[in-house]
Amino acid sequence: MPDKKIAFPLVVEPFQEDVTGHLSWANLGNIILRCASLHAEAHGFGYTYMQTHQRGWVLSRLVLDLEAMPATAEHFSVTTWVSRIFRQFTDRNFTITGSDGCTYGHGISTWALIDYATRQPVNLETLPEGGFHRAMLDEVPPIATYGRARCKSTEPVATRDCRFSDLDINGHVNSIRYIDMALDLFPLEWHREHTVRRIELAYGLEGHAGDHLELYKEALPATDDAQQRFAVEIRRPADNATLVRIIVALN
Amino acid sequence: MPDKKIAFPLVVEPFQEDVTGHLSWANLGNIILRCASLHAEAHGFGYTYMQTHQRGWVLSRLVLDLEAMPATAEHFSVTTWVSRIFRQFTDRNFTITGSDGCTYGHGISTWALIDYATRQPVNLETLPEGGFHRAMLDEVPPIATYGRARCKSTEPVATRDCRFSDLDINGHVNSIRYIDMALDLFPLEWHREHTVRRIELAYGLEGHAGDHLELYKEALPATDDAQQRFAVEIRRPADNATLVRIIVALN
Repeated sequence: MPDKKIAFPLVVEPFQEDVTGHLSWANLGNIILRCASLHAEAHGFGYTYMQTHQRGWVLSRLVLDLEAMPATAEHFSVTTWVSRIFRQFTDRNFTITGSDGCTYGHGISTWALIDYATRQPVNLETLPEGGFHRAMLDEVPPIATYGRARCKSTEPVATRDCRFSDLDINGHVNSIRYIDMALDLFPLEWHREHTVRRIELAYGLEGHAGDHLELYKEALPATDDAQQRFAVEIRRPADNATLVRIIVALN
Repeated sequence: MPDKKIAFPLVVEPFQEDVTGHLSWANLGNIILRCASLHAEAHGFGYTYMQTHQRGWVLSRLVLDLEAMPATAEHFSVTTWVSRIFRQFTDRNFTITGSDGCTYGHGISTWALIDYATRQPVNLETLPEGGFHRAMLDEVPPIATYGRARCKSTEPVATRDCRFSDLDINGHVNSIRYIDMALDLFPLEWHREHTVRRIELAYGLEGHAGDHLELYKEALPATDDAQQRFAVEIRRPADNATLVRIIVALN
């Protein structure tokens, strides 16, 4: 059996940075998803399993919490493992480590396994032969779990039309694209003067090509951990759906 | 000295595909730029040289011509080399090869070296110690070079505001982002039914955060090589600038 924790060696490649010269949040997000996919495949519940069983993993929640981001040409690694299975959900964790052993930060994600025939989530606790339990490791990253803040604003601050380039292989707007949508609500000058520490996403309905989205944003009260926090909500007015609730927090 | 041609082994990673399950044009574009950057660094005219000499490479033209795109999990390689230096320009070429030796396609790119102090291009033929000539290889890919078609339309088919996530480390809209902008002018159904064979880009002024862009598109006459061709132009009305002229061609 492969190790329960698998570390993927990586380097910040040219053109993966944002304007500050550090790995962009969206590229980190895509790397995280890629490592999740490769780890799942290695443990027998990845792409091959899903093709055979006509099921697919759906990301339900994601939090990324980083003290710093690796810069251009820096080597780093993403370690990922599964820590919990609870009914139809499972938690997958991430640690992002620098080449000198420093910890850049951590991530927690929650996934459901959808059966394509029924469109319903599968109960992960009652899968045959112990299901994915054999891959589990009882260890969680030292970061706060998901928050509960909501955006109460009723006036959108921006709109956005979903297009071909937003879609992943499933025909849905890529989960990580919503990170770009949220960070794009802050002007360039703000990004030059502030460093985002933590992003939380709670996913609702999926976005499709042609969707017209409304984006809402409001400042949240500071906490002991975060001087500045913002709630962002991405809604699709056509069916009054909330696609994603996001919290962006600064140190 | 490193080889004049360097091949970079790659794999289509999960989440690098478009909705058809093949490597997306934009991800191919970013991979091409990354390989260019790594090849230049290996030959002594990459990031380190640029930092020392306060100069930077600017992409002037790019054509990518692929019979097919590698699909999910397929291994492929990008081979790149420099074939020509002419006054302030140099041509860098690419060949994209499958793991079974098949050729997916080729690329040609043209670059200028800008001096940050004068904002002017450097004459690449008269650099000290022979400049970059020692890296040159007199070989060109077997694809048509750049075309000349222009978009004459005066009615934009879409608009687009440039945002933080569009920017690269230089604070300009990433050259490859314009590929997404062009392909996003075609609806999802069109992408499901058609396969883009070739994309050409001729870059003008650079885009910045906050720019409001207008996108123009028109069908071009068919050629012997392409049944369908489209000219796309991305303009910034604020200063009447053309940022990019693009040709999208199908088999």
